[in-house]
Amino acid sequence: MKNILGLSLLLLITTVAYSQTDNEAYTDDDALFIKEIYNTALTNGQAYNWLNYMTNKIGGRLAGSPQAAAAVEYTRQIMDTMGMHVTLQGCMVPHWVRGDKEMARVVNSRSMGTIDLDVLALGNSVGTDKLGVVAPVIEVKSLDEVKALGRKKIEGKIVFFNRPMNPTQLRTFNAYGGAVDQRVHGAAVAANYGAVGVIVRSMTLRLDDIPHTGSVIYNQLDKGVEPIPALAVSTLDANLLSNILAKDGTTDLFFKMNCRMLDPAPSYNVIGEIKGSEFPDEIIMIGGHLDSWDVGTGAHDDGAGCVHAMDVYQVLKRLNYKPKRTLRVVMFMNEENGLAGALEYAKQSNAKKEYHLAAIESDRGGFSPRGFTMEAENAVFLEKSKKAISWLPLLRSYGLELEKGGSGADISRLKGQKGLLFGLNPDSQRYFDYHHTPIDVWDAVNERELQLGVAAITSLVYLIDKYGL
Amino acid sequence: MKNILGLSLLLLITTVAYSQTDNEAYTDDDALFIKEIYNTALTNGQAYNWLNYMTNKIGGRLAGSPQAAAAVEYTRQIMDTMGMHVTLQGCMVPHWVRGDKEMARVVNSRSMGTIDLDVLALGNSVGTDKLGVVAPVIEVKSLDEVKALGRKKIEGKIVFFNRPMNPTQLRTFNAYGGAVDQRVHGAAVAANYGAVGVIVRSMTLRLDDIPHTGSVIYNQLDKGVEPIPALAVSTLDANLLSNILAKDGTTDLFFKMNCRMLDPAPSYNVIGEIKGSEFPDEIIMIGGHLDSWDVGTGAHDDGAGCVHAMDVYQVLKRLNYKPKRTLRVVMFMNEENGLAGALEYAKQSNAKKEYHLAAIESDRGGFSPRGFTMEAENAVFLEKSKKAISWLPLLRSYGLELEKGGSGADISRLKGQKGLLFGLNPDSQRYFDYHHTPIDVWDAVNERELQLGVAAITSLVYLIDKYGL
Repeated sequence: MKNILGLSLLLLITTVAYSQTDNEAYTDDDALFIKEIYNTALTNGQAYNWLNYMTNKIGGRLAGSPQAAAAVEYTRQIMDTMGMHVTLQGCMVPHWVRGDKEMARVVNSRSMGTIDLDVLALGNSVGTDKLGVVAPVIEVKSLDEVKALGRKKIEGKIVFFNRPMNPTQLRTFNAYGGAVDQRVHGAAVAANYGAVGVIVRSMTLRLDDIPHTGSVIYNQLDKGVEPIPALAVSTLDANLLSNILAKDGTTDLFFKMNCRMLDPAPSYNVIGEIKGSEFPDEIIMIGGHLDSWDVGTGAHDDGAGCVHAMDVYQVLKRLNYKPKRTLRVVMFMNEENGLAGALEYAKQSNAKKEYHLAAIESDRGGFSPRGFTMEAENAVFLEKSKKAISWLPLLRSYGLELEKGGSGADISRLKGQKGLLFGLNPDSQRYFDYHHTPIDVWDAVNERELQLGVAAITSLVYLIDKYGL
Repeated sequence: MKNILGLSLLLLITTVAYSQTDNEAYTDDDALFIKEIYNTALTNGQAYNWLNYMTNKIGGRLAGSPQAAAAVEYTRQIMDTMGMHVTLQGCMVPHWVRGDKEMARVVNSRSMGTIDLDVLALGNSVGTDKLGVVAPVIEVKSLDEVKALGRKKIEGKIVFFNRPMNPTQLRTFNAYGGAVDQRVHGAAVAANYGAVGVIVRSMTLRLDDIPHTGSVIYNQLDKGVEPIPALAVSTLDANLLSNILAKDGTTDLFFKMNCRMLDPAPSYNVIGEIKGSEFPDEIIMIGGHLDSWDVGTGAHDDGAGCVHAMDVYQVLKRLNYKPKRTLRVVMFMNEENGLAGALEYAKQSNAKKEYHLAAIESDRGGFSPRGFTMEAENAVFLEKSKKAISWLPLLRSYGLELEKGGSGADISRLKGQKGLLFGLNPDSQRYFDYHHTPIDVWDAVNERELQLGVAAITSLVYLIDKYGL
């Protein structure tokens, strides 16, 4: 919801759309072809099978890992077999490894004694030394609270960031956005005040015993301050720890993490392309990211987006559709902990003065699609979103809406090319049950929901390819 | 989808709505109150907790079972505790019991030897005798095919109904509606031509090893023909059996079912009521069905609908909302295999000349809500749907659509009272993964998706109560 009155931009957009329905920018043939796209994606889609391989045979695909390399080769082969022109675009990625299983233990608390907590080291975090860290815990709800408490209260402590995601946000990504600063910047901010470690409440709306990893960034460290180790704790154990602190006033926490950052490693974006027959310089790109966290197998995040993107071309090819514009399917590398692939792609694309008429990212999971977000520079948005909005009656007959909003981390750097950027918008209620966890696995993905995502993107690609923007 | 051009009534309805937005039939205060409803349902809803009890403590609630009786008492207590006036409305229900675990075995097939199949007796089916049934199998795709084959081909055989649900139907309920005649009437039609049993492909779009039960009805039996036993087979084993028949031409099947129909048993609808302060004779009813199948614990079907309905009042009460119209929360008994509760409710309501201004049924699972279907007699629909449609801009800001379509089996008999009947319309992609199976359990329900259903229904109830229809 954009505001409490529910008068969101979504409504404004659709109201505009309806004022335009007298002059619909598509034909009955388009409606028939899109029905064929849906039938094909639901009966001859490959996304679910490819995802099975990518998750169950390859596994978690952290940048720099052998699994990430295997995923590069696997998706290269798929696109090559489909007859796309495939290139590997080299990039150097951070190479972080988790090492031995991390642990955290409430030590000898007055009210509960000694208890092991469900934790996961945060990605990119420094580790502890072999003996681990023992220190008193101080609970805070925000980065600002750390700053307000100051060095006197923070120094020598483990800072426990415990502000939950806001459950009244209907869109769980907004709830995530409202809490994730603790995970990303908590370690740097706490270190600046002398903390020896941070433990962060997992980014999920569920109460359960599953810790959620995710990246930490140390770029807010003051000059000369060393990074400190950071880990995530399950929401149930976050509540437990908070209760112990409320009862006892203070308690010690011990934790040990063997993770470390190795030297940067070479890796690749995988780019499949079919040249357009009429407008080869107008690129329609569909992308997801190939890397994932090492826990779980990156099924929703973002195996789903990768197989979505590849299956779009598979469906169009099966329907003998010959694109007028250039279709490009991109498997981005290292979205999770560095964005090296996205940065390299944008750099090279801008250097070649390419024009992405449209880029569509799928990085919000393989759930039932509910539409697309769109973004562009202001003037571009006003001009280019009009045609997309004119397709709304057709899209809405498949339950798809269009709304203004961010597209995705891997494509947003292409905005300067003055095209329209889209993000697939699936139902978001379950996404953060799985995000960055050991349970983000193939079984958590429903075949029809995944394949409907393919159909939604393919329909949009078809309309953009046929009519431009 | 109503037709291949995607020009569904949904669109027509929303187009009407948008032509009316200059004169919106609600205020900013309504928008604020509905935001409060959502916040309350997401942070202080009880549906998920009640469902936990109903599924994990009580269990499967087949009509006539001790668990169904326990569910009557449990929901009576909840509504009584909330201060509703609660009555138990007696009805006699069929009392079918499954008995010992059923089995089916391909016997000594040429290509595969002897294989046990994953099966479940269909509800209301007669059993076999102690020795079971052995007979050759004949595969068909429809009731008509049985009739076309005739007695010569069918007599003495086990008829294997194997027409799958159509995966290209976007709404899985339509796919179900297009295949379920085989399960409901297959046994009677096959018996009329001398078959000794039927085995029916499970009603699901998944390929897995889970058989789906559901009711069989023998009302199409010719005079003097005895009912024959019927069971469901998992989709994977249906494919296996079909492959064996394709290879071998024929094979024998053995099956044994200990199920039987006992004498009708007394049971109850549970009715909670709050009299309206201004229009007590205008009833707004919210209902789900308390009974479920005996396998699994009836979480989506229809524990979700029951706790949805009760939580609507819990949320309104927590917000200190005093209804102007009479609110009635009804837990219907025996939807699954007889509709005894719905029939009794309609009979008594019609006899008392009650007027259900609106009735809202939730019996499509506890998934993310996408809107409501609406039905009424034609003239009533034209008149009463107008106001509901005028609320669409507000509802749509929560992702809810309105469309013409069936309401639900338990309330549709109230149409003659000339009110508007609604069915909650959740995302349907996963429903038939769980429907009538051992895996329809609490863990298959997502808390937020369930509670958003509560919020959607409560919002609609609030608007109807405030503005009428």
